Amino acid sequence: MLTAEIIAVGSELLTPDKIDTNSLWLTERLNAVGIDVMLKTVVGDDEARLEEAIRHALKRCEVVVMTGGLGPTEDDITRRVAARALDRELEYRDEIEADLRERFRRWGREMPEINKRQAFIIEGSRVLPNPNGSAVGMLFESNGKTIVILPGPPRELKPMFDDHVFPHLLDRPGAVIARRRIIKVSGMGESAVDAAIADIYRSIEGLETSILFNKSEVEVRLAARAETEQKADAILENAAGKIAAALGPAVFSTQGESLEEVLGKLLRSRSETLSLAESCTGGMVARRITEVPGSSAYFLEGAVTYANEAKMRTLNLSPGTLERHGAVSGEAAEAMARGMRERTASDHAVSITGIAGPGGGSEEKPVGTVWIGYAGERGVRSFKLLLPGDRYLIRWRASSAALDYLRRQLLKA
Amino acid sequence: MLTAEIIAVGSELLTPDKIDTNSLWLTERLNAVGIDVMLKTVVGDDEARLEEAIRHALKRCEVVVMTGGLGPTEDDITRRVAARALDRELEYRDEIEADLRERFRRWGREMPEINKRQAFIIEGSRVLPNPNGSAVGMLFESNGKTIVILPGPPRELKPMFDDHVFPHLLDRPGAVIARRRIIKVSGMGESAVDAAIADIYRSIEGLETSILFNKSEVEVRLAARAETEQKADAILENAAGKIAAALGPAVFSTQGESLEEVLGKLLRSRSETLSLAESCTGGMVARRITEVPGSSAYFLEGAVTYANEAKMRTLNLSPGTLERHGAVSGEAAEAMARGMRERTASDHAVSITGIAGPGGGSEEKPVGTVWIGYAGERGVRSFKLLLPGDRYLIRWRASSAALDYLRRQLLKA
Repeated sequence: MLTAEIIAVGSELLTPDKIDTNSLWLTERLNAVGIDVMLKTVVGDDEARLEEAIRHALKRCEVVVMTGGLGPTEDDITRRVAARALDRELEYRDEIEADLRERFRRWGREMPEINKRQAFIIEGSRVLPNPNGSAVGMLFESNGKTIVILPGPPRELKPMFDDHVFPHLLDRPGAVIARRRIIKVSGMGESAVDAAIADIYRSIEGLETSILFNKSEVEVRLAARAETEQKADAILENAAGKIAAALGPAVFSTQGESLEEVLGKLLRSRSETLSLAESCTGGMVARRITEVPGSSAYFLEGAVTYANEAKMRTLNLSPGTLERHGAVSGEAAEAMARGMRERTASDHAVSITGIAGPGGGSEEKPVGTVWIGYAGERGVRSFKLLLPGDRYLIRWRASSAALDYLRRQLLKA
Repeated sequence: MLTAEIIAVGSELLTPDKIDTNSLWLTERLNAVGIDVMLKTVVGDDEARLEEAIRHALKRCEVVVMTGGLGPTEDDITRRVAARALDRELEYRDEIEADLRERFRRWGREMPEINKRQAFIIEGSRVLPNPNGSAVGMLFESNGKTIVILPGPPRELKPMFDDHVFPHLLDRPGAVIARRRIIKVSGMGESAVDAAIADIYRSIEGLETSILFNKSEVEVRLAARAETEQKADAILENAAGKIAAALGPAVFSTQGESLEEVLGKLLRSRSETLSLAESCTGGMVARRITEVPGSSAYFLEGAVTYANEAKMRTLNLSPGTLERHGAVSGEAAEAMARGMRERTASDHAVSITGIAGPGGGSEEKPVGTVWIGYAGERGVRSFKLLLPGDRYLIRWRASSAALDYLRRQLLKA
């Protein structure tokens, strides 16, 4: 297996406002030729640290990709520091300077003298032309290691990588095809998922698995490697099938889709419609449902009935229900779902009522108490949750629980 | 000057889909106590590389912050590798296990045995409690170096840093006071803001300014460094006052608040109420309004009237209006706001109707066409926007425009 490290250079990437996003794109491209990214470093315009980073990376992996720091100014240090780390000299290329002068001439400008710096390259490296900017890239092979140096701006870096680096890496001995897939699970914790499927993923050759908890759902991330795409896909198909069977209805997607996308597909395929009545989630469920393009085909209407008066006015809750049981109760949740379904004549209606905090909790009904209601052809039901987290997380988790409850009702019907 | 390095741990951060955003927030907080971030490393669940990264960082700087890899599973390696890099043992803490068991009990679940792993901490370190998750953090002082270990989820990490690490760093010798403030502006572009205030911020000593466009608003980020908090705050106060005066009503906060928080304060201070009628934003405005704790004091009800039938049923739109002008029109927006205000008897009602795409656009009404309506004591009005971006951004920008329109109506009244 080939491994890579990515080094992003530039002090602006060490401020609170700017992040290195090139590495995501580069990772995807490197993965596609079976190269795993093992480490990413972001370093400023700091010669000692950059030289160390390059030297360490070269010891640990076969491919090192550097981005940024190729501009014409004094603080663009990548060229000279990389040369030093590789124990090479910089050499001046007349043809690069001529090209730069021509480029500036076409823009109607005179080339500033400092741009001459960009005509220096590391001796022995292949020059990677940059159609979208003034900094050329470099590709250097030494002792079985590939070192790639690219400018920072994404619109310069991407075509340079695809046109020159990608084909070069594909030709490397050891290049393997890798494919990925994400299985999503709701209603189970990270450790329970791991316990249920560890034997499966450990027994499948060519498969790497990682398990991640993401606010309200568990992601099982699979990666398969093989000599061909077909073989890698077959490994994934086999693994996904076994894992889905082991976890049962807790799995809502074996293709990385969101809960709302899955629901959209289910409702569309059955030509059924949905309405929503939300209290504590304040529109979050409706927002998630309508995030999906084309959701107008099945989503009829949502009511955000925050005040008790709104619950009575729009959902037809009786003052008696609210007085006897309170707005956060199974009775209220069921009445909300029933009222919304009657109001809109939808096939399904889901309701949420709860206490998102930080205020409003009591001993009997602490912050995090949430009731989900459902009304459909086969009747009305509800269930209670006690959700951990702050206001945002309680609302998010309540909205996920409501979507998942609806999904499970649809599967039963 | 004190320097820091940040190490993010987790193989998921080396995939094409996930980026370490914690480091941006951490950088901002470290900068706030005068600590510069010199290098960031992202490393997978890879013991050798992580140990090297920690050892190198400790050689080069005074503060090392690690995030992630504290979960209960086998591939959560931060605890044991950090202990090794610091030449320390792990020690088991009964009270952490007891706390974990109690936490699971409150969620109505039995603690899985593997969670016992989370009761191990590096000997000699201070335990940092985690109110929002099961992984405690650690703070370790050794040879003038501060090592901080925090869990990866932002909602866990941030309060832990602010409650325990930030005060600790402030007490370090060499800490300089830096104070920050964010001024938020809507309805103006980044360059227009810069042109209007560049002379102001350039003339103020001890002030650093950066201007950032954030989806639908411009943030003017001010940082002041001085020997005392009072002096730094005085610099900020002076700068914020001058900038707010130069930009006028486009400034909605000089304290970094969100649009929905500002609206909440305005409505509360006037004891007025709000209702919402949303079409293309699908509940996003209601969700943003109700994100603010205590919003039940002024938010009465929201209607997500996605289907035309819903607009007629709930907002009393006439079939004639919809036929003559279409659902995306000034007439429809005004009728929606009027209908919602009448329905709920709220002081203010805001409506949104538009085409978020990717489908549904036409030559006359392209994707991004959005009408915002308003109804209040002084009448009904509307205005049209043509918003750039994908579905998510159009919806976000439409929701921001609606909130900002309401704010400006409130300021006028």
